[in-house]
Amino acid sequence: MKTLIKNGLVVNATGTGLADVLIDGETIAAVLAPGSNLLGFDLERNVDTVIDAAGKYVIPGGIDAHTHMQMPFGGTEASDTFETGTRAAAHGGTTSIVDFVVQYAGENVLDQYKAWHEKAAGQCAIDYGFHQILSDVQDSSLVAMDELVAEGVSSFKMFMAYKGVFLSDDGQIVKAMQKGAENGALMMMHAENGSVIDLLVEQAVRAGNTSPYNHGLTRPWQAEEEATHRAIMLANLTGAPLYVVHVSAKQAVDQIATARDNGQNVFGETCPQYLYLSLEDNLGATSDEWGPFEGAKWVCSTPLRSKAEGHQHHMWQALRTNDIQMVSTDHCPFCMKGQKDMGLTDFSKIPNGIGSVEHRMDLMYQGVVDGHISLSRWVELTSTTPARMFGMYGTKGVIQPGADGDIVVYDPNGHTSIGVGKTHHMNMDYSAYEGYEIDGHVDTVLSRGKIVVDDDTYVGTKGDGRFFKRGLSQYLI
Amino acid sequence: MKTLIKNGLVVNATGTGLADVLIDGETIAAVLAPGSNLLGFDLERNVDTVIDAAGKYVIPGGIDAHTHMQMPFGGTEASDTFETGTRAAAHGGTTSIVDFVVQYAGENVLDQYKAWHEKAAGQCAIDYGFHQILSDVQDSSLVAMDELVAEGVSSFKMFMAYKGVFLSDDGQIVKAMQKGAENGALMMMHAENGSVIDLLVEQAVRAGNTSPYNHGLTRPWQAEEEATHRAIMLANLTGAPLYVVHVSAKQAVDQIATARDNGQNVFGETCPQYLYLSLEDNLGATSDEWGPFEGAKWVCSTPLRSKAEGHQHHMWQALRTNDIQMVSTDHCPFCMKGQKDMGLTDFSKIPNGIGSVEHRMDLMYQGVVDGHISLSRWVELTSTTPARMFGMYGTKGVIQPGADGDIVVYDPNGHTSIGVGKTHHMNMDYSAYEGYEIDGHVDTVLSRGKIVVDDDTYVGTKGDGRFFKRGLSQYLI
Amino acid sequence: MKTLIKNGLVVNATGTGLADVLIDGETIAAVLAPGSNLLGFDLERNVDTVIDAAGKYVIPGGIDAHTHMQMPFGGTEASDTFETGTRAAAHGGTTSIVDFVVQYAGENVLDQYKAWHEKAAGQCAIDYGFHQILSDVQDSSLVAMDELVAEGVSSFKMFMAYKGVFLSDDGQIVKAMQKGAENGALMMMHAENGSVIDLLVEQAVRAGNTSPYNHGLTRPWQAEEEATHRAIMLANLTGAPLYVVHVSAKQAVDQIATARDNGQNVFGETCPQYLYLSLEDNLGATSDEWGPFEGAKWVCSTPLRSKAEGHQHHMWQALRTNDIQMVSTDHCPFCMKGQKDMGLTDFSKIPNGIGSVEHRMDLMYQGVVDGHISLSRWVELTSTTPARMFGMYGTKGVIQPGADGDIVVYDPNGHTSIGVGKTHHMNMDYSAYEGYEIDGHVDTVLSRGKIVVDDDTYVGTKGDGRFFKRGLSQYLI
Amino acid sequence: MKTLIKNGLVVNATGTGLADVLIDGETIAAVLAPGSNLLGFDLERNVDTVIDAAGKYVIPGGIDAHTHMQMPFGGTEASDTFETGTRAAAHGGTTSIVDFVVQYAGENVLDQYKAWHEKAAGQCAIDYGFHQILSDVQDSSLVAMDELVAEGVSSFKMFMAYKGVFLSDDGQIVKAMQKGAENGALMMMHAENGSVIDLLVEQAVRAGNTSPYNHGLTRPWQAEEEATHRAIMLANLTGAPLYVVHVSAKQAVDQIATARDNGQNVFGETCPQYLYLSLEDNLGATSDEWGPFEGAKWVCSTPLRSKAEGHQHHMWQALRTNDIQMVSTDHCPFCMKGQKDMGLTDFSKIPNGIGSVEHRMDLMYQGVVDGHISLSRWVELTSTTPARMFGMYGTKGVIQPGADGDIVVYDPNGHTSIGVGKTHHMNMDYSAYEGYEIDGHVDTVLSRGKIVVDDDTYVGTKGDGRFFKRGLSQYLI
Ligand SMILES: [Zn+2]
Ligand SMILES: [Zn+2]
Ligand SMILES: [Zn+2]
Ligand SMILES: [Zn+2]
Ligand SMILES: [Zn+2]
Ligand SMILES: [Zn+2]
Ligand SMILES: [Zn+2]
Ligand SMILES: [Zn+2]
Repeated sequence: MKTLIKNGLVVNATGTGLADVLIDGETIAAVLAPGSNLLGFDLERNVDTVIDAAGKYVIPGGIDAHTHMQMPFGGTEASDTFETGTRAAAHGGTTSIVDFVVQYAGENVLDQYKAWHEKAAGQCAIDYGFHQILSDVQDSSLVAMDELVAEGVSSFKMFMAYKGVFLSDDGQIVKAMQKGAENGALMMMHAENGSVIDLLVEQAVRAGNTSPYNHGLTRPWQAEEEATHRAIMLANLTGAPLYVVHVSAKQAVDQIATARDNGQNVFGETCPQYLYLSLEDNLGATSDEWGPFEGAKWVCSTPLRSKAEGHQHHMWQALRTNDIQMVSTDHCPFCMKGQKDMGLTDFSKIPNGIGSVEHRMDLMYQGVVDGHISLSRWVELTSTTPARMFGMYGTKGVIQPGADGDIVVYDPNGHTSIGVGKTHHMNMDYSAYEGYEIDGHVDTVLSRGKIVVDDDTYVGTKGDGRFFKRGLSQYLI
Repeated sequence: MKTLIKNGLVVNATGTGLADVLIDGETIAAVLAPGSNLLGFDLERNVDTVIDAAGKYVIPGGIDAHTHMQMPFGGTEASDTFETGTRAAAHGGTTSIVDFVVQYAGENVLDQYKAWHEKAAGQCAIDYGFHQILSDVQDSSLVAMDELVAEGVSSFKMFMAYKGVFLSDDGQIVKAMQKGAENGALMMMHAENGSVIDLLVEQAVRAGNTSPYNHGLTRPWQAEEEATHRAIMLANLTGAPLYVVHVSAKQAVDQIATARDNGQNVFGETCPQYLYLSLEDNLGATSDEWGPFEGAKWVCSTPLRSKAEGHQHHMWQALRTNDIQMVSTDHCPFCMKGQKDMGLTDFSKIPNGIGSVEHRMDLMYQGVVDGHISLSRWVELTSTTPARMFGMYGTKGVIQPGADGDIVVYDPNGHTSIGVGKTHHMNMDYSAYEGYEIDGHVDTVLSRGKIVVDDDTYVGTKGDGRFFKRGLSQYLI
Repeated sequence: MKTLIKNGLVVNATGTGLADVLIDGETIAAVLAPGSNLLGFDLERNVDTVIDAAGKYVIPGGIDAHTHMQMPFGGTEASDTFETGTRAAAHGGTTSIVDFVVQYAGENVLDQYKAWHEKAAGQCAIDYGFHQILSDVQDSSLVAMDELVAEGVSSFKMFMAYKGVFLSDDGQIVKAMQKGAENGALMMMHAENGSVIDLLVEQAVRAGNTSPYNHGLTRPWQAEEEATHRAIMLANLTGAPLYVVHVSAKQAVDQIATARDNGQNVFGETCPQYLYLSLEDNLGATSDEWGPFEGAKWVCSTPLRSKAEGHQHHMWQALRTNDIQMVSTDHCPFCMKGQKDMGLTDFSKIPNGIGSVEHRMDLMYQGVVDGHISLSRWVELTSTTPARMFGMYGTKGVIQPGADGDIVVYDPNGHTSIGVGKTHHMNMDYSAYEGYEIDGHVDTVLSRGKIVVDDDTYVGTKGDGRFFKRGLSQYLI
Repeated sequence: MKTLIKNGLVVNATGTGLADVLIDGETIAAVLAPGSNLLGFDLERNVDTVIDAAGKYVIPGGIDAHTHMQMPFGGTEASDTFETGTRAAAHGGTTSIVDFVVQYAGENVLDQYKAWHEKAAGQCAIDYGFHQILSDVQDSSLVAMDELVAEGVSSFKMFMAYKGVFLSDDGQIVKAMQKGAENGALMMMHAENGSVIDLLVEQAVRAGNTSPYNHGLTRPWQAEEEATHRAIMLANLTGAPLYVVHVSAKQAVDQIATARDNGQNVFGETCPQYLYLSLEDNLGATSDEWGPFEGAKWVCSTPLRSKAEGHQHHMWQALRTNDIQMVSTDHCPFCMKGQKDMGLTDFSKIPNGIGSVEHRMDLMYQGVVDGHISLSRWVELTSTTPARMFGMYGTKGVIQPGADGDIVVYDPNGHTSIGVGKTHHMNMDYSAYEGYEIDGHVDTVLSRGKIVVDDDTYVGTKGDGRFFKRGLSQYLI
């Protein structure tokens, strides 16, 4: 199976160039001058498929390094399965996800790892990798960290919040980080001070402040800034590289920026929700259907931040300055009916999560159109750096010979309307971005050389996606 | 003329990949999977030249964005002509330079621009571009800035030192920056407080402190930090992007880092001399031949900084953290005999400058070997970012179809001994890096598809190098 | 002549205490427990005058360390003479001023010093000292610095703006600072980048933007921040202590705070106008009488800053955090008619200056009432620190035995209405604070033991005030 | 009982002045011009005692706001009782201490408070106050906080270390801080990350690294910096004022400085051990008697820091810049024999603490002699600010009418040799400052008007000291 994508503008992390891309089987065979007939040989006639990308962008497939498919959480389970979630991802131009194997306190890490493989195997529309969550840090967990790195799971996530569920105490974090410093694994952190948040939540609920808006108020920026700083210090102490997930507060960004200026390997990820949505507009929303519970649609953690305080503006800047290096989704969808509504009378019972694996590439492209970031930076934030950060570069994240044929043809003259009943393939009964209009369009998506989405239609097969083993981070300084 | 570079490890700014590179005429036609016979067609048999790069790095040719060939300065002239200097550059794996058109106070900018074209035309071994120096800022100079941008000279350098020679006062700087903010040109700055330095120099000489070591003492870090901050504020006021040349003081680095964290388009360049050499070891050196005047070999401005104060260590870190984005040479060679010795009894009469256009790629590669920077960062610092910064990317600075065939085959198993009588093609009677041993070697150098250096031998022709028109910076955020 | 101030709350810089103050002749003889009859001896019966201060504050007389009486400037002369200005000061509870001897470029420092003594001698209502302005730094000026320190003039002011009038270049500043580092004098700086401002003013006027509002726009915060940083670096280089006058931009405050955190002897003064007035409300004001020229009333340099940018709010905070240590007035009054109106068609011709020597103590007390600062901090900012900063402490700035009887009885239950025709003893045809209402009142003012203001009536005699010799700063760390 | 201290140089926090001090009964009646015969009345003849302080300093008695007399800790009890400890304090010129009521987890706050009163009542040589320690934060503890503020206990200390003993979790800290923000109490924090330290200690001991030196290694600066930052953020969240005890790491100082620059009410205390002693010289010491266990003498927490890292140097600077506001001792003495030696084979069993309540005034005066701080700053750091910080000013911390007659006559021409068998009144079998020589001497100490130490002899009576009720902090901005 040979495919030639011709006449497109290939965009990579440092710039662009007009080029044809030849895919042979699952991998890219060559990148050529447009229309190249290579010393007399007519390529176009010798391939199976020709995609004309004239006037369009040819980009490495999106990599969403933070998703939670069918994750059991808060007494329910994230509503997208590996099947539905990865299919939605493909629709949106994302050709790889890195999902999280969950280990709750008391469980065995490797058992969980096996269980997650079973969940995902044969289900996925696109390639997938795993991070491993560590909650309590048993001696066996430390041993497992070495085994998992060998298995291609080179990143471990810990939580400074969610007591009794995920929370690791600082000593446990240090123990795991010591192992990371030793075997080269990247340590990921959910950085919020859970002890403080638990108190504030309890006080709010007791005071009768039970609407979703209070979710934001009870997770103040200080709780995020504090935990971010703490994680940085623990990493500094141990020498482990640190990756802070879903950064939303500008003060947390500043902590990361300072550590980086000091030469420490500290990285930050943000998500579209922290760029576009806010405490005021979303957590504080009301609707005819839901009243003030409308805000439940956007209950996620870290929470949406106040627009008045300028977090969103600062976050776009941080994407430009590379103080924040990546954009993932933290895709963790729940339906309003039957899931989010568990918290109808108590916001603390609302499952935390927003789904947007389908829209990340579009939403970030809109950032290009709106002048927040450059075209190259779009690719860097959504594909190249995720690949480098998590040890996939070369196979993923770049259009070059030998790389997987994970390619998106993106039309800057196309248009995408986000919303239920429009483009919406995630298993959610609402869209977190209902009504958003994007000045661009995902035309064609190839996963390892095979077209899986064409003209908004899924043309792949369940199970096309394969697990990939990742190496150590290629982004460390 | 067709050339295939096969089996090398192509290194770009974000990572590496094994690939063959096909050059057709002056430009790269394709990058292909190694040994690719593209659907049955045997490339190797259909090209004129095959270079086997197995076990070697294939990198975009070095871009030295800061050189001064045959510049009249300090009563003499930099000792490398465009001919000798660019030939030496080619030997060292540098395939492009951006040199400076000098306008001294009272001169007409466009007259000077023409004069520099006459100096360089038909002389160069490799491609060259120009920055324009502005000293006084006449009304005609502001008009000329627009014309020069259209001519492909999109960057303008000013000086905060060298009164009566180069110095612009702050009002003049703002005037030029306002124009830069308007037409998109990048403003470059020699950031040292000349007024303070002139006083300290005068006091030192009057006190009989006349040896080269005093060159360092009379240009303290405060003078650089201050001017750097001032340039940043003037750029902030006007909205112009700012590029600070030859940063040597860690405190100046910090000023740049702070401005960047704040989202300002501020960039910094350092040079090998600020990474490897020091006040103590070099400006303070003595020799049998020259006594304490030995230090004159390393009299350049900004000066070499104190090792005890840790500037060099901090500068390597800044290269890792991207607080400093590029490495150029500020190549400005003078011979000891007949030039540097003009200052035998008064350091202030020593022509300021060090030559190292030939050794930049090697010296920075040694930084990879020594663990200071990664392989990709080497390419980014010496080629890709210079290309982006100065509007050449796509044509220069990257190995991709359509780009110029400016390529270096670099052997990590080779070795290079630096010194007069060893590798030394610059027109200098000494080497600033005498005795340095490099764990790598420039094997083959192609300039626009033509091999110009092969196995330490220059095989090009005078005048191969062409002037290139640059666009606006592609590195702005 | 013996006076007993009884039953008042004595306020000093660290706290308060109920106490009687006994003044014998010109100095304080004792501070005693209220009603103390000292072992049987009835003080009250043995003094000439008893002032009942029950329910009132007894504070050391205000010290305004920055005034310009009858200063020739901008083609006219500040409208308050030493006589009128010091009388107004006394009305407002200020018992000492430190005024500036002007040396314009080309003039001889000691000649000027003598001339200023002649102007002031026999004129003043309260004690006065001098700072010496240095513009060009002649060799004779450096010699004069030593002589002046011996004369009790231990502080020297320089300007980074006002080219051709006051401006010193950076080399001249360093030269003077080297002398200051040697003889212990405090170096004061008007920190604005004059070269930039001159350009912006010229551009504004040429563009027809001639109203007073443009005075603010053409002196942007960057010009102040830059010069402040530069002054700090020059001081750092030389080791001289630095005192930045009339700080108005929050970014300049931050530069001072950073230097202080680093242990450098850097100090900052602000003025009531930078706490209460703004670009929008004042420079941008219009009136029936003056139209947009109304703003001329508040043309001073550094300029009033934008309220929207939050400078005033930040400045109050800096007073609390001691990042700014003192409040002076920069009293430099000009009448609207015949003086300010010189700039009716060109803001750059408006004499720069605001008069408020009379209102500083009241305006800052209002800061206590409004909760910005504490009672002790009020005394510290307006009297104790000025005394320490400028080498007067012990004689001035504190209520303790041996100190001059410079005392104000301030009534927190009184009221003061500011405005022409209300309280207004300065020689100005308008008030910069017209309509301000103060929740407190200056009841009685003693200067060296003599009551000079009582119940809003001046009861002193012209020439009561004496020149005082100051020592070196007592505030250095 | 009337006493006149004549002809001394009275030193207060802002400066000095020659004055006589008259004490009548327990309080200061007057401060007078030297030799004042007040309008004809001869004081000297009318008092009971005259102390000639000519050539000496007359200062407010030292206030040591951080002591632990007979505190049960680590399976033993601090070796100084309220009797021995306060007597030693008096010998050293300290006339007030604020000691800590301990509440261990599970205990009732008010019960403990009563118990501590019983321990101290009738025992003390000087006046004493109490801070209350909170470990777990029971609902009753929050109620008790209000009651204790009314009782004159206006400051509460919490611990971020010592799990199972003192440790409060972050939610508990917030709960207590919310109360502090409400009732105005000052929240004190032992800021070290106990969870991390416990792990490092366990790892060290398991690895056989059991000598006292490892005490320092297992409490790295990161653990202090982190907890300091965390405490600041929790205070920021709640609005409570924060006082960080025994700051030793320069990085923690920087966190405090940053918070203060931002206008937050954050304060820091250091101790003589963090100025004079070090990891290398003391924790790493060996002796004939004890071998490497010699270091046990200086096992305290926070630990002595590395001299090579420059903490001590930075701490002196912070005392000058007021980034650290006070010097206390954290006096918590243990004997080597029978106490410290419990950790002979395991440093983690060594009771944590150093005794120096006797030497603080001398050691800090040596800082004046050595040029680290000024004379006024000495008084401010050791007496005036402690009084203001903890709500005692007016009664303590200043020499003014109405204040307690707590006065020290200090001889700058005297000399003090520190060491067992020299001056040593603390109940310890070694001195932490053995061999230190001080260029000054405590001549006479008065506590509430009564001479308690004269010429190195204790002349007071057990039980002279009274409990004093403190008000809210007078130092808040
Ligand atoms: Zn999370
Ligand atoms: Zn997540
Ligand atoms: Zn230069
Ligand atoms: Zn140069
Ligand atoms: Zn001024
Ligand atoms: Zn002035
Ligand atoms: Zn403690
Ligand atoms: Zn303690």
